[in-house]
Amino acid sequence: MTDNPAFVLRNIEDVVFEERPIQEPKEGEVLVAVKKTGICGSDVHYLLHGGIGDFIVKSPMVLGHESAGLVAKVGPGINHLKVGDRVAMEPGATCRKCEYCKCGRYELCPDIAFAATPPYDGTLQRYYRIPADLAYPIPDNMSLEDGALMEPLSVAVHAVHILGGLRACQSIMVFGCGPVGLLCMAVAKSFGASRIVGIDIINSRLEFAKQYAATDTFMPPEVQEGEASIAYSRRSADEMKRQLKIAGRGAGAIDLVIDASGAPSSIQTAIYVVKPGGTFVQVGAAKSPVEIDITTLVVKEITYKGSFRYGPGDYPLAISLVSQGRIDLKPLVTHRYAFTEAISAFKSTKTGKGDDGKIVIKAIISGPDAP
Amino acid sequence: MTDNPAFVLRNIEDVVFEERPIQEPKEGEVLVAVKKTGICGSDVHYLLHGGIGDFIVKSPMVLGHESAGLVAKVGPGINHLKVGDRVAMEPGATCRKCEYCKCGRYELCPDIAFAATPPYDGTLQRYYRIPADLAYPIPDNMSLEDGALMEPLSVAVHAVHILGGLRACQSIMVFGCGPVGLLCMAVAKSFGASRIVGIDIINSRLEFAKQYAATDTFMPPEVQEGEASIAYSRRSADEMKRQLKIAGRGAGAIDLVIDASGAPSSIQTAIYVVKPGGTFVQVGAAKSPVEIDITTLVVKEITYKGSFRYGPGDYPLAISLVSQGRIDLKPLVTHRYAFTEAISAFKSTKTGKGDDGKIVIKAIISGPDAP
Amino acid sequence: MTDNPAFVLRNIEDVVFEERPIQEPKEGEVLVAVKKTGICGSDVHYLLHGGIGDFIVKSPMVLGHESAGLVAKVGPGINHLKVGDRVAMEPGATCRKCEYCKCGRYELCPDIAFAATPPYDGTLQRYYRIPADLAYPIPDNMSLEDGALMEPLSVAVHAVHILGGLRACQSIMVFGCGPVGLLCMAVAKSFGASRIVGIDIINSRLEFAKQYAATDTFMPPEVQEGEASIAYSRRSADEMKRQLKIAGRGAGAIDLVIDASGAPSSIQTAIYVVKPGGTFVQVGAAKSPVEIDITTLVVKEITYKGSFRYGPGDYPLAISLVSQGRIDLKPLVTHRYAFTEAISAFKSTKTGKGDDGKIVIKAIISGPDAP
Amino acid sequence: MTDNPAFVLRNIEDVVFEERPIQEPKEGEVLVAVKKTGICGSDVHYLLHGGIGDFIVKSPMVLGHESAGLVAKVGPGINHLKVGDRVAMEPGATCRKCEYCKCGRYELCPDIAFAATPPYDGTLQRYYRIPADLAYPIPDNMSLEDGALMEPLSVAVHAVHILGGLRACQSIMVFGCGPVGLLCMAVAKSFGASRIVGIDIINSRLEFAKQYAATDTFMPPEVQEGEASIAYSRRSADEMKRQLKIAGRGAGAIDLVIDASGAPSSIQTAIYVVKPGGTFVQVGAAKSPVEIDITTLVVKEITYKGSFRYGPGDYPLAISLVSQGRIDLKPLVTHRYAFTEAISAFKSTKTGKGDDGKIVIKAIISGPDAP
Repeated sequence: MTDNPAFVLRNIEDVVFEERPIQEPKEGEVLVAVKKTGICGSDVHYLLHGGIGDFIVKSPMVLGHESAGLVAKVGPGINHLKVGDRVAMEPGATCRKCEYCKCGRYELCPDIAFAATPPYDGTLQRYYRIPADLAYPIPDNMSLEDGALMEPLSVAVHAVHILGGLRACQSIMVFGCGPVGLLCMAVAKSFGASRIVGIDIINSRLEFAKQYAATDTFMPPEVQEGEASIAYSRRSADEMKRQLKIAGRGAGAIDLVIDASGAPSSIQTAIYVVKPGGTFVQVGAAKSPVEIDITTLVVKEITYKGSFRYGPGDYPLAISLVSQGRIDLKPLVTHRYAFTEAISAFKSTKTGKGDDGKIVIKAIISGPDAP
Repeated sequence: MTDNPAFVLRNIEDVVFEERPIQEPKEGEVLVAVKKTGICGSDVHYLLHGGIGDFIVKSPMVLGHESAGLVAKVGPGINHLKVGDRVAMEPGATCRKCEYCKCGRYELCPDIAFAATPPYDGTLQRYYRIPADLAYPIPDNMSLEDGALMEPLSVAVHAVHILGGLRACQSIMVFGCGPVGLLCMAVAKSFGASRIVGIDIINSRLEFAKQYAATDTFMPPEVQEGEASIAYSRRSADEMKRQLKIAGRGAGAIDLVIDASGAPSSIQTAIYVVKPGGTFVQVGAAKSPVEIDITTLVVKEITYKGSFRYGPGDYPLAISLVSQGRIDLKPLVTHRYAFTEAISAFKSTKTGKGDDGKIVIKAIISGPDAP
Repeated sequence: MTDNPAFVLRNIEDVVFEERPIQEPKEGEVLVAVKKTGICGSDVHYLLHGGIGDFIVKSPMVLGHESAGLVAKVGPGINHLKVGDRVAMEPGATCRKCEYCKCGRYELCPDIAFAATPPYDGTLQRYYRIPADLAYPIPDNMSLEDGALMEPLSVAVHAVHILGGLRACQSIMVFGCGPVGLLCMAVAKSFGASRIVGIDIINSRLEFAKQYAATDTFMPPEVQEGEASIAYSRRSADEMKRQLKIAGRGAGAIDLVIDASGAPSSIQTAIYVVKPGGTFVQVGAAKSPVEIDITTLVVKEITYKGSFRYGPGDYPLAISLVSQGRIDLKPLVTHRYAFTEAISAFKSTKTGKGDDGKIVIKAIISGPDAP
Repeated sequence: MTDNPAFVLRNIEDVVFEERPIQEPKEGEVLVAVKKTGICGSDVHYLLHGGIGDFIVKSPMVLGHESAGLVAKVGPGINHLKVGDRVAMEPGATCRKCEYCKCGRYELCPDIAFAATPPYDGTLQRYYRIPADLAYPIPDNMSLEDGALMEPLSVAVHAVHILGGLRACQSIMVFGCGPVGLLCMAVAKSFGASRIVGIDIINSRLEFAKQYAATDTFMPPEVQEGEASIAYSRRSADEMKRQLKIAGRGAGAIDLVIDASGAPSSIQTAIYVVKPGGTFVQVGAAKSPVEIDITTLVVKEITYKGSFRYGPGDYPLAISLVSQGRIDLKPLVTHRYAFTEAISAFKSTKTGKGDDGKIVIKAIISGPDAP
């Protein structure tokens, strides 16, 4: 290992450990020694496909964006952080001047420099430079791994709280029981949701969801021969309502649906299962266009919202929820890897099953200096 | 003509004039002598197809729901209306007890009895009974025809103001320049929109829109051979932006898009043309499922809302907008028919072209007693 | 006892048990055999002063409005309730037709008929007639006493959730640790507030608050000779901040302040202690005008809201919170009385101390038939 | 005149013209040659009293904050502005990093550096340095004077639109017909308010308001001997309602009240005249605490909000409203002064009457270079 080793994606399925220059923190910035980094489906997607939608990897890029570490150096003008402080790192640096930054929706800043989104390098390196206000001190009762997981938890906070507006005693259904889906359920539980229904097509994930945060789970029925996708979705929704005794309207119906799966049939089904006047938040992107039953959207006056990353206040709220003991992230970290084992970490996240045969929820890679 | 002649749909394309009993106004109700009724696309749809979505005409039903008239009889407990008062008639009587009625979204009341929606009779009869609070006095400076048009104008108020949240100096794009689309533009103009773009595939409708309320109009390009619908929509959006010099983001981009066309390509294009963080309101139902680019919905954090009829406050606001001279409805009424000519009125609305060869925006049928 | 004994206020401090006719439930109504009634400060106020603000008792009026009971008779058109059902009774019957009823704020209906608010009789009688949708079925895991307490709990839900908009991990300060203040803290706790500060001038009430729902309590300092009320309030706020280590701004400052005391110094202090951009909800009415530091209201852009009773959705949410075990009402009921002991119940509520010498939080009077 | 002459407040009523160093624009900043500066009541207040509330002038401070000018020099990293561009100058530079800056309420930034608020120098000098995104290009159809008036217009936009939420066909009442009050009325008019009532105690100001933007005006009655302030306010409100035929509730009542006067009796009266559920926005600070009828605030569920300066989007909207011809600022500029006549400008603003005997609405001081 050298001064600043980094885990670099050069091309599709072509990653190497490379030496990168250490950035000097400028006015208002800090340099963080990265200690823990969670692996996200989007990292894997870049690895396998070289891009996501319009974001194409054109030159070598350091991967990783769910990180926490120790402050290693402090730039000019910083008084509230000092060397050695444990910090969770929000990975998107915004312009702070555009309409979106000023009006409280900085996730839409057109000039955002987001870790491991081309052309910006990610956090899987020894040192990462970051604006000081995006390095959030980690409370004493939280671990560095918790700190790394503030990133996906903020995604869930944004979807469930900011866009979904969930409140105590409402019901929520979450399609997809991967890390983001599970965290959406955890946020819903911490906000006092009365009913939390997890949907997935893999039984072991449903079981995990049930133990972790869901009050109910449901596995969609199989597609019947010749069944059109919309017809299937309608049938699937009816089956859900019947098996789970979900009311069609009003009290007992689903107030908020989150799609964290990106699967067309999930998105289609959501429209049928959400209550009239309810909200449907789309967290996961879908590979291709999805057929939507527009008439049902209209007749039920559904609000369908896209949720992208996280905005102002999401990191602080995520930290509070864990620090106050309202959400426990420990069960989510199922696999841990040394920095040099990064490829294995990606592989396990990709397949969803570790070498040990166990289900992978979240794999964490330690920094180069960690034991 | 007899006591209470009515225009009744018996079966697909099978309408007759029939005698119906006169309803006696109960506590809190009034009987209205219907004087003017606008013909809506949904009436025509029932006539041609015997149903809309899940609403199927199973027994003979009186048509018509955009009406105004004179109070003919006053039920017990009504002090604020008297015989002879001119009133605009809101056609949906709700239960007033359910969650939706109480929480300010009565358009979603599951027990709503809506004129000319099966199994409820409509207003194309001499007399129609209505809860007194749904019979809104028409100010002196408005005509009975204006009163009848409070119905479609309320649809526009609901979409543009309540769900769209449009405010002064924002930009709006409206797909579909039929009556509802035109009224959405009129509402936008009355709210001080900075830019109002009308989209349609018929040139005469675009010309009407330009004279009436639009600041710009656009006719989508033709589909090229082998072009997929999503690709076409993206190209169409790019072309719109180029020709109309619409910015991709922030100031100068489209804050609010309304689809009043129900056409798949309109809906798909809307997703590409609305600004990040913007709102897209769906007013018109679409015949079949529509492919949506979900990834774009997510990355731009679009809010996509279904708008159904109108709710509390929409009729009063519609009346105020016209009464205060902020919206002029007169240009919209292009064709007028006697009660006995109802079939001709439906035919002209269906084809969009009158016997006189002129474009039909709104056809109005007078009541049986009118000259 | 006769058929329908009632506890009637005839004049200031002049109450009698009188026989009243039993009301016959009309269309959409039910007759409830009242079993449990909580005594509220407003009842006592009518007893002692003969009125509250503009509401003056001009003719004999049955007292009581926090009640639950059993359905005794069902009026025409009611299918969802049957004789013997346990119900919580929302005491305000509204017109369902006015702007406020339709737009989701029925608490502002000018024609509301509210139990024990002149000239309307209250619930302290054997039978009470009520619209069926205001008789909420009590879940099996809740008692009739819980049902009676849905009334003050709805007041707290309205103040903290609907108007205060409190969410998880926010901080709240509540002035006044009487029943409504305590319930506001309980709601805040159930919504996941990070910090709940109770303020009172009586130590035993602070102790109760600390055990029940508060994370911190504070007793305001004594007034110093010659100290103006505004100066005192500012000093009191500074002292609170210092002792409780409340930040002046941003994270750690008070997001939401509730005044449930009606004391001028509480209201004045609230302005100084709420964070910039924060919300201050006034639940308790104040006897006389209160001096407010307007400049501070402006410079901090405080939102100061009056909260009156409760509106749509508050009773259902209150029931859910208790039914799901998120709020425990049992500790609040400190004293219980037979119907014939109603005067003692009022007396104990007035003094705040029972004959047993213990602090009275909530006194409950059983119905005439109860053992 | 020298290189950078400035108009400096040294002590109460002690102002001089002094030479100040020219600031060099840093990264992201521009230097503006100030051409037009409006005089605001707060400038006068500093001149007369040496402070406003907690803001005390402790060392010499350049006055002025309502300005527009020409870009004189461009700092590093600025591409969208060039020397000679005409710009309106938003006078508050914020930290861009705190909770308030990020969440869309930068007016509450604790570290805001606001022109002519101690200890920050103002704009009444030849050159003023400003972050480039706070220098808004002035559209061709607007004058530099219009540009200077974007400051008070933004105050009005913030109060009426952002905090007041006024929409078309609502009614508004504005206490105080000075510049801010008049601009609130102008904003209300541009948003389509149905009724705009201006209140003042000076007849010539009411006349101006009526010609400029008000639909109605009212002069409060005189105080009767021995009349308490609350009693006077209630009587004044009743008189307003009677003379102006304002309904007590619902349609026809006052939806939004703005106090731009700071007078106790205005604030007290506002509580009585706003409709139940209505909003009352306080723009002007009041010299001392004001007695408020809290019970009325509660029973009517009034929302009373402090409005401070302006936040994100207010300047852009102000510019759009004028540029699109929806607001005409020209009538407001009644008096113009050369830079060397600054003292006269302050004097005329203070007295409200010019040397010419005419009412002063807004006095504008030209920059040192202007003819």
